[in-house]
Amino acid sequence: MTKFWSSMAKRAKPYIPGEQVNKQNIIKLNTNENPYPPAPNVIRAINGEVNESLRLYPSPTMDELRTTIASYYDVTADNVFVGNGSDEILGFSFMGFFEPGKPIRFPDITYSFYPVYSKVFNIDYETVPLREDFTINKEGFFNSEGGVIFPNPNAPTSLYLGLEDVEEIVQNNKDTVVIVDEAYIDFATESAVNLTKKYENLLVIQTMSKSRALAGLRVGLAIGNEALINALVRMKDSFNSYPVDRLAQAGAIEAMKDVAYFEEMTEKIIATRERTIEALTSLGFNVLPSAANFVFASHDTVAAETLYKKLRERDILIRYFGTEPIENYVRISIGTDDEMDQFLRAVETIIAE
Amino acid sequence: MTKFWSSMAKRAKPYIPGEQVNKQNIIKLNTNENPYPPAPNVIRAINGEVNESLRLYPSPTMDELRTTIASYYDVTADNVFVGNGSDEILGFSFMGFFEPGKPIRFPDITYSFYPVYSKVFNIDYETVPLREDFTINKEGFFNSEGGVIFPNPNAPTSLYLGLEDVEEIVQNNKDTVVIVDEAYIDFATESAVNLTKKYENLLVIQTMSKSRALAGLRVGLAIGNEALINALVRMKDSFNSYPVDRLAQAGAIEAMKDVAYFEEMTEKIIATRERTIEALTSLGFNVLPSAANFVFASHDTVAAETLYKKLRERDILIRYFGTEPIENYVRISIGTDDEMDQFLRAVETIIAE
Repeated sequence: MTKFWSSMAKRAKPYIPGEQVNKQNIIKLNTNENPYPPAPNVIRAINGEVNESLRLYPSPTMDELRTTIASYYDVTADNVFVGNGSDEILGFSFMGFFEPGKPIRFPDITYSFYPVYSKVFNIDYETVPLREDFTINKEGFFNSEGGVIFPNPNAPTSLYLGLEDVEEIVQNNKDTVVIVDEAYIDFATESAVNLTKKYENLLVIQTMSKSRALAGLRVGLAIGNEALINALVRMKDSFNSYPVDRLAQAGAIEAMKDVAYFEEMTEKIIATRERTIEALTSLGFNVLPSAANFVFASHDTVAAETLYKKLRERDILIRYFGTEPIENYVRISIGTDDEMDQFLRAVETIIAE
Repeated sequence: MTKFWSSMAKRAKPYIPGEQVNKQNIIKLNTNENPYPPAPNVIRAINGEVNESLRLYPSPTMDELRTTIASYYDVTADNVFVGNGSDEILGFSFMGFFEPGKPIRFPDITYSFYPVYSKVFNIDYETVPLREDFTINKEGFFNSEGGVIFPNPNAPTSLYLGLEDVEEIVQNNKDTVVIVDEAYIDFATESAVNLTKKYENLLVIQTMSKSRALAGLRVGLAIGNEALINALVRMKDSFNSYPVDRLAQAGAIEAMKDVAYFEEMTEKIIATRERTIEALTSLGFNVLPSAANFVFASHDTVAAETLYKKLRERDILIRYFGTEPIENYVRISIGTDDEMDQFLRAVETIIAE
């Protein structure tokens, strides 16, 4: 079976994406998607591009999209890279900044794609244990040999690391790249983007899949100094020159421009999150103080696996990891208020059983 | 500038995509796009997906699209891989089938992305010289140490290698993978897809960017035995789980289903190609017998560079490579009949000057 596989194909330990279920009327709280639709302007912009022009290649440099992102973040287009979702940018980052033989560091509980990239690109890594309260232990990331990557807020813990701490990690890795994976940052307090103006070794990666409700369109972005962005461009143009299609570029531009809609939806999700945390706490859950569009929780008496399975029977999907030391935690994406009410009622019933 | 670059980023020699000009009324014969729009059914299918569902991730396994492709080619979905354009699949192929230290082979005049992948993934390569008439010298590919890749029809020569010769190359590389890059196959006689049922070491890669007029949507496909497809899946899931977005999947399904439209447009382009070859020949050009949606031509008296530049002044873009031994050739994509008439009139004027 593996006769024709390269050593890279053999050593790979592929990522397993969250379940996508093709079923109506399911309450899908398992992959941290946005419960609200993309902005009406985004839909209009995409519709405007569904025409004859699809026969033509998209812009490989994505100038208009990069300029729009740059103006949102008050940087220049040369500080912006755009890719096919933030995962592709993470892949290019492992290729462009990390080196076989020089171990990088990431938290022991974190986005499970990091060890996958490490494996496939032959990058050694050391995991830095979270503190007992699941917060990131910043000192553990100081003076890494090969570089640092961590999500902020971290996943699946949902915890946000303050910018002073992020800055200290960056300062204490002067000769290597520190990547802050801000997939969930819009549900937290403040992005590290401004720090990229001060530190040449800091790369911030974000996605339009969560706060901008465009998981289906595959757009991610990275911000950093020009030398870092150029390394990403070199990796892209050594792999696939046009990873973001015409419709995705058109939609992403409007998603960045429509700030009012974006802020309204984000605030709505945050409000629902706070209400959900309160309700879960009063049902006997230990819920971490989330800065993301999901919560990470465990219950005093009902096992995480039981909760996951019984919710599933009721067509409510949440994420259960089942690995030490988070084997008694579940991750619950924040849905609409109505979805969360149904979820909470189901949880209440399960606990009472 | 390169302080933070990995050795991979440093050694990369990125691909330079064909010019995309943002100008109206240009005649664009430089990137082998289809001059005709995608099928009306494709446009309808995409429009039907531009809605709230964009907030949800696309299918990572793309079952419906793979099944549709499988049924078109009379293989099973397990024999089909789909990626973000054929370039991404080429990237995964270099990762999954080729090995550092075991040189692969490709023609000396061919798709210029192959040496780019080789460089970035540290794959040694030997180039096999074309024959003097620009045809592929099949014996040169026998018994490769690391594998073989070539386009059929070849680019930029436009020449098709008969399936018996393809089969001989596959038979004479029993222990390594032979990749036939069929980006332009629908403008030629016959695909090697049927041979994949017979040979476990043959992978055929195609794209929807040319014959299916969807360059703007980024969809490519590969067909081969299950073990080869599984290696590609492993590479994808070690890099980016969802590279083909919801709209691209919806459009690509219809593009495969609407066989009548596809055949009509392809035949139209072939007819225009034949007429163009005739006209160019009568204008003193040496035109290779094209099996693609472009022609490769040189003129007895007018230098290729002059022709390229003078056409450019008239807002007609063709591709000029300027490298030995094809420094006197230009590559001309086949446009609509009207575009080719304008092109031919311009060429006639330039020659007369």
